[in-house]
Amino acid sequence: MAKVFGHIEGHPVGSLYQRRKELSDAGVHAPLMGGIHGNSREGADSIVVSGGYRDDEDYGDLIVYTGHGGQENGRQVRDQDITDPGNAGLVRSELEGHLVRVIRGASGDTEHSPSSGFRYDGLFRVESHHSKIGMDGYRIWQFRLVAAGASEEEDVTPFHGDTAHDPAPRRPVNTQRVVRNSAVTQLVKQLHKGQCQMCSQILTVPGDSSYSEGAHIQAVGHPYNGPDVLENILCLCPNCHVLFDYGARYLTDDLRVVDGVRHEEIGELRTHRKHKIDTRFVRHHRGRWVATD
Amino acid sequence: MAKVFGHIEGHPVGSLYQRRKELSDAGVHAPLMGGIHGNSREGADSIVVSGGYRDDEDYGDLIVYTGHGGQENGRQVRDQDITDPGNAGLVRSELEGHLVRVIRGASGDTEHSPSSGFRYDGLFRVESHHSKIGMDGYRIWQFRLVAAGASEEEDVTPFHGDTAHDPAPRRPVNTQRVVRNSAVTQLVKQLHKGQCQMCSQILTVPGDSSYSEGAHIQAVGHPYNGPDVLENILCLCPNCHVLFDYGARYLTDDLRVVDGVRHEEIGELRTHRKHKIDTRFVRHHRGRWVATD
Repeated sequence: MAKVFGHIEGHPVGSLYQRRKELSDAGVHAPLMGGIHGNSREGADSIVVSGGYRDDEDYGDLIVYTGHGGQENGRQVRDQDITDPGNAGLVRSELEGHLVRVIRGASGDTEHSPSSGFRYDGLFRVESHHSKIGMDGYRIWQFRLVAAGASEEEDVTPFHGDTAHDPAPRRPVNTQRVVRNSAVTQLVKQLHKGQCQMCSQILTVPGDSSYSEGAHIQAVGHPYNGPDVLENILCLCPNCHVLFDYGARYLTDDLRVVDGVRHEEIGELRTHRKHKIDTRFVRHHRGRWVATD
Repeated sequence: MAKVFGHIEGHPVGSLYQRRKELSDAGVHAPLMGGIHGNSREGADSIVVSGGYRDDEDYGDLIVYTGHGGQENGRQVRDQDITDPGNAGLVRSELEGHLVRVIRGASGDTEHSPSSGFRYDGLFRVESHHSKIGMDGYRIWQFRLVAAGASEEEDVTPFHGDTAHDPAPRRPVNTQRVVRNSAVTQLVKQLHKGQCQMCSQILTVPGDSSYSEGAHIQAVGHPYNGPDVLENILCLCPNCHVLFDYGARYLTDDLRVVDGVRHEEIGELRTHRKHKIDTRFVRHHRGRWVATD
């Protein structure tokens, strides 16, 4: 079943459905079984949150959603795998900025779920993901989903024939990635003069400037709750920042850089005497991607 | 004078000032002379828009602001330089996502300017910049400034002592960079399987995915008005995307890649038979950074 991102015409937020079959016929959540409709190539376009995984957390506009797999009779009996098609689909949606339809079922969180059947609760952004040892003692993958604001659909100019230079009507695009900056982030970038602490690159641009990004080691926001302090921020080039945020790079306690796909050391972090890194944050980040050591 | 970003306490949007001296004493725009308060290291924190440059365009929430230099008696008599401290300051603010205070003077655009003196008109984001031959026949640098929405100040968790793992009060951060995605952008990335058309890198992340970005060649939005079509989009890694967007990379008509700082060819664009590039867009992008050839 092809993925269809966004709202489904005729099915506004708040629509109610008694059975999975109705959700499927409507195209709001296509599969009759399974919480995630997705795969690694296209992404995931919808999920059902219905209390099937006890590590789920539902705060209304923020959901910490447990991925697919490893269950028998409602309990985890083995580790989940990030390459499971549903889980990999949510990763792809995160990477692409695809918004995911969230459907809540009656057996989910009592405060935020419908009293019976299923309810379409709108579009959510996959902000981040991580693994951890769940309540049943096995590794699970979790996705931080945040309700998409109206401002998340912005405009670009489309093309009509070859009138490329005329302003034209507009259509929506999604945000794929947002990089933020704060006073302490700027300080880190200044100390390193814009040089990436992982690959040593400096992206020099015309106008006496260079471009670098501040990367939080322990991510900010629930469920990570990392602080915005010097000891928790790296100066990275955009490429290493992406790789670090998605677990393709992590650090050892002695600040060696590890490739998170092959789990091989590939170098060491550049340091600066005025910029100490706190090992607690390094461990928190590493714990999101590899078994706790 | 140190740069102070953001609103100045006691000086809300709409505040009126009769003279530059009052603006300066208030700290809303520190220098008594000059339209831009900035330098390449700190960025620019405020500008005055007062009709001094005839290439300026003021649409209220969108201003195309001409940089500093090259004028005598209100006319351009030589090219402007992007390394002029004010101009380089606006580039730095763009790179960092710093918001810039905009003050309009009575001699600016009749529709959007105060009837006398100066008015503080709030915080603007520097979205992009470019050079072009201005009305007087000399090269000028221009900055696209967009009124910052309330949503541009977002929250992160700060640090208190070593209670790093407690959620804590929040404080504002700016957006440094936003990457957008659309259906046609996705298609370009799929055709190239996430491989950068400039440096050939593939950023592989755990979960059977790779990360790449769609980069518009002729930028979208006024004053560029590039279309969101296949022929106007490149599949780039984040580093090459940043370099391309800030003029540190541009293309020749035969799709060779040029370093925009040293103006030396450094390679050629990878192509795909189903993804043709339109030379008009290549020329438009190049024209923003180098003398029209």
